[in-house]
Amino acid sequence: MTIQKISSFAAGQWVQPGQSARIIKSAITGEVIAKAGNDALDVQSMLDYGRDVGGPALRAMTFHDRARMLKAVAMQIGKHKQALYDISFDTGATQSDHLIDIDGGIGTMFVFASKGRREMPDGHVYLDGEIEQLSRNGTFLGQHICTPLQGVAVHINAFNFPVWGMLEKLAPTLLAGVPAIVKPATSSCYVTEACVRIMLDSGLLPAGSVQLISGGTGDLLDRLGMQDIVSFTGSAHTALSLRSAPNILQNSIRFVAEQDSLNASILGADATPGTPEFDLFVKEVSREMTAKAGQKCTAIRRIIAPEVQVEALIKALSARLDQTTIGDPRAEGVRMGALVSESQKRDVLEKAAIIGQQAERVYGDPDNFTLQGEGAEKGAFVPPMLFHCANPDTSDLVHCTEAFGPVSTIMGYRDLDHAIQLANRGEGSLVASVITRDGNIARNLVMGVGAYHGRIYFNNRDSMKESTGHGSPLPHMVHGGPGRAGGGEEMGGVRGVMHYMQRTAIQGSPDILSAISGTWNPGAQEIEGTEHPFTRNFGDLAIGETIHTASREISLDDIEHFAEFTGDTFYAHMDEEAAAANPFFPGRVAHGYLLLSFAAGLFVEPNPGPVLANTGLDGLRFMKPVQAGDSIKVRLTVKKKTGRNEEYGEVRWHVSLTNQEDELVAEYELLTMNAY
Amino acid sequence: MTIQKISSFAAGQWVQPGQSARIIKSAITGEVIAKAGNDALDVQSMLDYGRDVGGPALRAMTFHDRARMLKAVAMQIGKHKQALYDISFDTGATQSDHLIDIDGGIGTMFVFASKGRREMPDGHVYLDGEIEQLSRNGTFLGQHICTPLQGVAVHINAFNFPVWGMLEKLAPTLLAGVPAIVKPATSSCYVTEACVRIMLDSGLLPAGSVQLISGGTGDLLDRLGMQDIVSFTGSAHTALSLRSAPNILQNSIRFVAEQDSLNASILGADATPGTPEFDLFVKEVSREMTAKAGQKCTAIRRIIAPEVQVEALIKALSARLDQTTIGDPRAEGVRMGALVSESQKRDVLEKAAIIGQQAERVYGDPDNFTLQGEGAEKGAFVPPMLFHCANPDTSDLVHCTEAFGPVSTIMGYRDLDHAIQLANRGEGSLVASVITRDGNIARNLVMGVGAYHGRIYFNNRDSMKESTGHGSPLPHMVHGGPGRAGGGEEMGGVRGVMHYMQRTAIQGSPDILSAISGTWNPGAQEIEGTEHPFTRNFGDLAIGETIHTASREISLDDIEHFAEFTGDTFYAHMDEEAAAANPFFPGRVAHGYLLLSFAAGLFVEPNPGPVLANTGLDGLRFMKPVQAGDSIKVRLTVKKKTGRNEEYGEVRWHVSLTNQEDELVAEYELLTMNAY
Repeated sequence: MTIQKISSFAAGQWVQPGQSARIIKSAITGEVIAKAGNDALDVQSMLDYGRDVGGPALRAMTFHDRARMLKAVAMQIGKHKQALYDISFDTGATQSDHLIDIDGGIGTMFVFASKGRREMPDGHVYLDGEIEQLSRNGTFLGQHICTPLQGVAVHINAFNFPVWGMLEKLAPTLLAGVPAIVKPATSSCYVTEACVRIMLDSGLLPAGSVQLISGGTGDLLDRLGMQDIVSFTGSAHTALSLRSAPNILQNSIRFVAEQDSLNASILGADATPGTPEFDLFVKEVSREMTAKAGQKCTAIRRIIAPEVQVEALIKALSARLDQTTIGDPRAEGVRMGALVSESQKRDVLEKAAIIGQQAERVYGDPDNFTLQGEGAEKGAFVPPMLFHCANPDTSDLVHCTEAFGPVSTIMGYRDLDHAIQLANRGEGSLVASVITRDGNIARNLVMGVGAYHGRIYFNNRDSMKESTGHGSPLPHMVHGGPGRAGGGEEMGGVRGVMHYMQRTAIQGSPDILSAISGTWNPGAQEIEGTEHPFTRNFGDLAIGETIHTASREISLDDIEHFAEFTGDTFYAHMDEEAAAANPFFPGRVAHGYLLLSFAAGLFVEPNPGPVLANTGLDGLRFMKPVQAGDSIKVRLTVKKKTGRNEEYGEVRWHVSLTNQEDELVAEYELLTMNAY
Repeated sequence: MTIQKISSFAAGQWVQPGQSARIIKSAITGEVIAKAGNDALDVQSMLDYGRDVGGPALRAMTFHDRARMLKAVAMQIGKHKQALYDISFDTGATQSDHLIDIDGGIGTMFVFASKGRREMPDGHVYLDGEIEQLSRNGTFLGQHICTPLQGVAVHINAFNFPVWGMLEKLAPTLLAGVPAIVKPATSSCYVTEACVRIMLDSGLLPAGSVQLISGGTGDLLDRLGMQDIVSFTGSAHTALSLRSAPNILQNSIRFVAEQDSLNASILGADATPGTPEFDLFVKEVSREMTAKAGQKCTAIRRIIAPEVQVEALIKALSARLDQTTIGDPRAEGVRMGALVSESQKRDVLEKAAIIGQQAERVYGDPDNFTLQGEGAEKGAFVPPMLFHCANPDTSDLVHCTEAFGPVSTIMGYRDLDHAIQLANRGEGSLVASVITRDGNIARNLVMGVGAYHGRIYFNNRDSMKESTGHGSPLPHMVHGGPGRAGGGEEMGGVRGVMHYMQRTAIQGSPDILSAISGTWNPGAQEIEGTEHPFTRNFGDLAIGETIHTASREISLDDIEHFAEFTGDTFYAHMDEEAAAANPFFPGRVAHGYLLLSFAAGLFVEPNPGPVLANTGLDGLRFMKPVQAGDSIKVRLTVKKKTGRNEEYGEVRWHVSLTNQEDELVAEYELLTMNAY
């Protein structure tokens, strides 16, 4: 068998392993399959290349450009995923584990691509929140914006998900416009390297935007500056040593940590045996114990159940775990593969022994279990092990000892407060799950355990068909947790992109803010041309382009007619005395929708032209009642433009209605689709 | 003169200074005026009191309760502000400095009180962002929420703003629902202590919500846990030693740092002598140099101007600084007071000497300047000092040496890229200001320097009357910056409250999410009663209460009549052939506003009742065109309730319009004001 050489990709070149390369063994057979590592790697040139070549290229693209690039890269990986499956078995993973890692990683990129297009602008500046009114007359305003960091993101990944672990960090980083240096864990780096080759070979990524270190990072962290960021996934021990580095602390370098934690799953008191929730709990717990052989940072380490159900649960879980065939993941019928390495197996057995000091092993014996597949006796296999802790209040070890394998401890709770106490004794987790259908239990648990958890996953008969599993971080939702879980956050949609950007509070005049944000705001210059803006193509329309309409008087007949026609005979429109008694109205007033409709009548251009449709309206507020005899006129201004496809784009118009005294009557934002 | 004893407030008791108390001298006269500090302070009992008494009391209140409390406390401080002015002179501050500190602090509390009422719910859970659709059929959804940390916030404040420095941290902390232990700098702690007494004497704060340490914190930081947070303002040196504490690092304890930085002010190339912008620049710079005798973390340390303007600027700045009368701030006509202490004065002169190695002092001589007021020669006075650095590219000291007093260095730039380079050599600042009226300069500067700055302040003739000053952090805007500025953020409205809360990703069924958030979402249970919800008082209405209306057919007559009546004769409503050619429509369609108006006609209850007015509408989206012969019906559900005053509250209704095939035609959220 040939030993594969796993390379790094540094400053535009593939660099083969050097003298000091470490060997990597198959998790299944113990055979040496690859080697990686190069002490002579020039990390400074990698940093320079990322900062000086990759960064500027990415920053020249808009958020939408980068989102499209992510989508294209994800499709490219998808085309080659069979090759990634094939080499992933040697990490000990089963085909269903591959789906989590490889298809999960690809899916994550697609979600970021989609969110980038839908939730971020087609420009270079992301607007964070609304305009802040900092002055009475509106000549001085505030706006928070985000721009990409100008350094490099160093991604230090865990061994368990060599593809997803890379892509879930890479997607928000690249979307932000920041180049990355990816450093996978050596034990599974051959899968990551293969995926990086697919991405780089595609030619879709600008030079310098992704580099790879297979092996050690040398003194890379000591060379980082205040525009760089470290994003780490792994053990608390390694995280602590990295984040304590003087250079990181001294330069306030961002350090996002996602650490393994003692995640809990709680069975609600309503979920008694015989309910769909009880069965669901057994299913979720056993799946979390065995998927990826329990090597998941989100795996359920503590099973917290009503005391009266503990016995039934142990029985049900044992029965289910009995169905888990263990062995070579390439062998027929195998449901659980190996741990990633011999050393990982030693560590799991040591930790299980520690847990065993305060809890009784009620299922699974590492010295006596059945293995499928030839040669598997040399692999890093362990069976699922379930412990029962009878005294969880006085046992500290079960709340702080993580065996990073198929190992979990069940403990009983007396009442909801006790369950909350036990859950929080993990001192911070990535995720807790709760199986309940009782809204009160859900609410009280969230108030009690929310501050200790980055994610809380509820499930019951209503959601179980579509739920995604306790252990699956989703790109839409934040992944990370406080305390033991590292205090970091990843993903969570656009929130995850923000880690790679700097938020800046901008203050200035409306014109200055518009120039920066590419968005018109009240008070900024209005551009009035000779043409009606509705006759101008998407591409030609300028931000700030404005039309002021003629005015129209509202008569009592109009109001009565509108009431009769639409059926909206609310007394404030129909009955002078009753209307005047209402705290908001001086007497009979026009319908709000009458105003909207008349406003459209004032500004709509009737003939076919670039405006294809009115697709929606946001933030409508009625400021002042309009009575019969008042008249209204409209100011309509291009606030923002967002390309949608090659045929048309969305125009967001700022609209204000004023009366004959120039008082603001209503304000809103109108959406239209306009042809190019 | 009596020496005042400055106490701590610990676990519900005022504790006088002990044996080890430090003396505090007047900045103006050098006389000993007070002493503070107590080695025997029981910090563990303070932590317990905050966590076990203060926290639960605050968490029992809603965001609105806490916002009302902030407002009442701010009013109480306002009533007693003269007493705070009176004792503040001894810190060296002038009456205008007091306004920044004391009135600025009160104003900050008012803004948080107002934002708490307007931007946060009247409940216990803050919703962060929208519902995430995690499943095809909508039975499994995501929602990010924030709940208060269950520990204590330790506020470590700087000497320069003994009132504002406390209140700008206290307002978001208390609004979040977290108790605080306030630790002011000893040199001005007598002002903080007086303000804490006003707050505590008011009886408005729950027991345990605010405690005070006058003097040292002992081993407080070593006793913190993962639910506690440290919020620090001060020097980079102290920040580094605190954030490197093993306990902080090991438990991922949040550490928010706001450090002094080398803030820059940039003069745009358009702002030549003779323009209002040039004069404005001179005014802003000289004000920032002299306000609080330059002891502001936001003060302008580096003046970056076009090379050709440097000479004119030095002349203009010198002329303006000549008008700054220095001396006892209680004396007539004094515009600049003293530094806070003799040791601070020594430090400023040392740092000025370092800057002097690479820049020439062109204004101000610390050995020769005029002082007003009797006995002031013993005070900690220095004059404003302006340096000129002729070679800013090769000079490193001017970009990293901060003299925390009225000291600033002017340097010339060749072009905008050079200005960007120079600004960024500060390696991270709280704020940069730019005086320009040119939108291109503004945009390019933001793209170049944004990632290095927490705030960028633009000013010009358009905004100068209402602008708030380079050096003034505002409660609406983020205060903090990357790198040298510490990497932390404070304030910024609700963003600042989030530092004291945990964000948690919640996943579950629509009913579970509704139970947690107190907000109805599509898919959650609809409650249908016998009464029309519009006939039910605000207090009685339940979240989820729903009405399904009858349906109404839309005729071609309706469409034509609506067009004629409103004037909206857009071809998609009027011309079958032209409409069919439009990519969005199958042929002639009903107006969107016709649908809205008919929908109102279907659900409005005409008689006087609890619904007082329709005040607005959000997120309207038209999903499917409606043609003549189609019919529409409406589902209207209570999504959210927010109390406004004692008479009425706001109800947010979720509305969906469906056609005869039950297809979604339009969706929006409707706002009404409903009587109690």
